[in-house]
Amino acid sequence: MADLAKRFPENPLLRPAHVHPSTAGMQVICLLNPGVFRFEGKIWLIVRVAENTAAKEGMILVPIIDEEGKTSIIEIPDKHPELINTDARVVRFQGLDYLTTLSHLRLLCSDDGIKFYEPEGYAPLFGRGMLEAFGIEDCRVTFLEGKYYLTYTAVSSNGVTVGLRTTTDWKTFESHGVIFPPHNKDCAIFEEKINGMYYALHRPSSVDLGGNFIWLAQSPDGLHWGNHKCIIKTRKDHWDNARVGAGAAPIKTDRGWLEIYHGANYKHQYCLGAVLMDLNDPSKIIARSNEPLMVPTETYETSGFFGNVVFTNGHIVDGDTITIYYGAADEFVCAAKFSIAEILKSLNV
Amino acid sequence: MADLAKRFPENPLLRPAHVHPSTAGMQVICLLNPGVFRFEGKIWLIVRVAENTAAKEGMILVPIIDEEGKTSIIEIPDKHPELINTDARVVRFQGLDYLTTLSHLRLLCSDDGIKFYEPEGYAPLFGRGMLEAFGIEDCRVTFLEGKYYLTYTAVSSNGVTVGLRTTTDWKTFESHGVIFPPHNKDCAIFEEKINGMYYALHRPSSVDLGGNFIWLAQSPDGLHWGNHKCIIKTRKDHWDNARVGAGAAPIKTDRGWLEIYHGANYKHQYCLGAVLMDLNDPSKIIARSNEPLMVPTETYETSGFFGNVVFTNGHIVDGDTITIYYGAADEFVCAAKFSIAEILKSLNV
Repeated sequence: MADLAKRFPENPLLRPAHVHPSTAGMQVICLLNPGVFRFEGKIWLIVRVAENTAAKEGMILVPIIDEEGKTSIIEIPDKHPELINTDARVVRFQGLDYLTTLSHLRLLCSDDGIKFYEPEGYAPLFGRGMLEAFGIEDCRVTFLEGKYYLTYTAVSSNGVTVGLRTTTDWKTFESHGVIFPPHNKDCAIFEEKINGMYYALHRPSSVDLGGNFIWLAQSPDGLHWGNHKCIIKTRKDHWDNARVGAGAAPIKTDRGWLEIYHGANYKHQYCLGAVLMDLNDPSKIIARSNEPLMVPTETYETSGFFGNVVFTNGHIVDGDTITIYYGAADEFVCAAKFSIAEILKSLNV
Repeated sequence: MADLAKRFPENPLLRPAHVHPSTAGMQVICLLNPGVFRFEGKIWLIVRVAENTAAKEGMILVPIIDEEGKTSIIEIPDKHPELINTDARVVRFQGLDYLTTLSHLRLLCSDDGIKFYEPEGYAPLFGRGMLEAFGIEDCRVTFLEGKYYLTYTAVSSNGVTVGLRTTTDWKTFESHGVIFPPHNKDCAIFEEKINGMYYALHRPSSVDLGGNFIWLAQSPDGLHWGNHKCIIKTRKDHWDNARVGAGAAPIKTDRGWLEIYHGANYKHQYCLGAVLMDLNDPSKIIARSNEPLMVPTETYETSGFFGNVVFTNGHIVDGDTITIYYGAADEFVCAAKFSIAEILKSLNV
C-alpha cells in the first residue's frame, strides 16, 4: 500500500539547534515527540527536549534531577566492567538502568503550523519529585471541558510511569501525580466523556505473559482509573509485531473513534497505522490497518539519534485533514498531512 | 534475629489431597496462598487451588479457560525446539508464555482456625473472560464498610493483572474488572478509608528501570485508582533484594499501619517481614524489618512444588495476636502466630 502521509516540504521543522539548552552546561541532543494543541488562535507544540552534558574523557555522564529540583550528573567510567551501554537511550550500570539524556518539555507556538518560536512568558516544564528524576517525555495534550490534560512519560529509578498535569492557561499547572504505575507510557485521554466516563488509551508492558499492548481504562474524574481492558495487541506477521502504542487523543468520526498509533517491529522500525473504535464503546475495535499508513523513508526519519522511527503523539484536525506532528529518528520534529476519508477507506469501512 | 513465627504444630493444615478437583480429568497439584476472613462466626479461607490434567506421554498439557468458560487443554510436544520449560510454574512456547497449572479459588471454613472443611452452598470462584483465561490466584480479602473486597491475580495471555470482585454474602459476587493493568499483583486494600479516600498496596513490575517494588494507590470509590507512589523497594544487601510484595490488608496499630510483606532474594527464597506506615499518610514509611520475621525452615516450607517459600496473603487479628495463614513451598496451607508487640519491638518503634 502507498504511504498515505503527505510530508511537509519544510521537514524537518525543528532540529536540536532550534532551541537553547535549559541551563548552562547542558546541550540539546534531541528535539522530538511533540504534543499539539490550539490555544489563543495559534498552534502550539509541547515538545520533548532531550539534553545531556558535554562529553568528558573516559566517562559516561548521566544527568538526573535531584531532590531539590536541580540537575546533577552521575559519572560512570566508560570501561567499567559493570557497565552495559548497547542502546543509545539507556545504560545499565551495577544492575541499575539510567537514561543517557534528561528530557523536559518546552512550549513553542506558530501562526502557520510550520514556523515555530518560543513565546515569552511560558516556562518549560521539568520533572519534579522522585518519580520524575530521570525526566518527563512524550506529552499528549487532551482538551476536555475547558481544561488541558497533559499525560506524559515520567521516568525515574522507580520505573516508567504516566504522569498527569492539568492547566487552563499554560502558565500554572496542577500536578495529579502518577495515574498509571510502571511499566506504562503512551497515554492518550479521549477529548469527550462517553456515557459519563472519561476514557484513556495506555500502554503497559509485561515482564512475562502479555506484551507491549494498548489498553483502555475508564475514570469517573479523569484522575483515578479502572476497568482496564486489553484492546490492541501486537500481530505476529505484521509491521507492528513487537510493540504498539497510542498516538494523541482519538479523533471522533461518524464511523468511530479513529486513533493513529505507532507500531514497531523486532528490527525497531517504528511506523504509524490506524485503528477505529466503536463510538459508544471504544473497547470494541471496528477496523485496523493491515499495512502502515506511514513508514520511515526520508533521510531525517531513517538517520538520527535512533533511526528508522516515525512516532506521533500530537495532531491538529481541520475538517477532513489531520496534520500530525511527529518525532523523526528520535531527533527531529516533522509534520505530515493525512486525509481522514483516505484513512477510513484504507481500513475498508 | 530469631524467627518470630509460632508455627502451628498441625502444619501443614491443608494439602492438595484435602480437596476434590474442580472437574473430572483435573488433578489438584497445589493448595496455597489463602485469603482469610471472618464471616458468620467462623474463620474462612479463600484458597488458591492449582490444577492440571493427568500426564500424557511426550506432551506438556496446559489448561486454560476458553471463551465459553470451560477448561480446555493446549498440548505442547515436550521435545519441541520452541519450548522452554525451566520453571515449574511457567512454560514458554513459540514466544508465548503459559502457566503449567490453572488456578481457581475455593472457600473453606473452620470453627477453630485449624480444621477446615468445604461448606455446602458456597461455589468456587473461577476465572472469567479473556483477562482471566489462565486463572485467578492469591486472593486478598478486605472487609470495608460492610462489604468484602476480593483483590486477586488475574492471569491471561494479555498479562498478569489485579482483578476485583465484591460480595456481602459469599454467594453472589459483583465483578469490577481489572483495577491494575500489567504487570501487577499482590494488591491489598486497606480496611479503613483515610481522609475520605480508599488506599491500596500493589506490586507492579518493570521491564526496564525500576523493579519489583510495592506501590501505594488511592481511590475515591474503591474501583478507580490514581496518585500512585513507590513506597517500599528491594534492598541490595538484604533478604528482600529481588522482589517485595504486600501480604493481606495492613493492620491498624497505635504506632501505624503494620503490613506483613514477603520479600524474595535472587535465590528465590521467600521470607516474611514487616513494614510500618504512618496512620494518616501511609506513603510515609516509619520502620521496616532489617531481618525477616519468618524464614522457610520446616520441611513443608523448603520442599514442595516450588521450595523455600513462605508467602502470606491472609490473616486474622485477635488483640495482640496475628494468625497468619500462608502458602508453604507453593503447595501447602500452613498457619503461624505472631505477637504485634514483638513485631513492633523488632522494628524498634
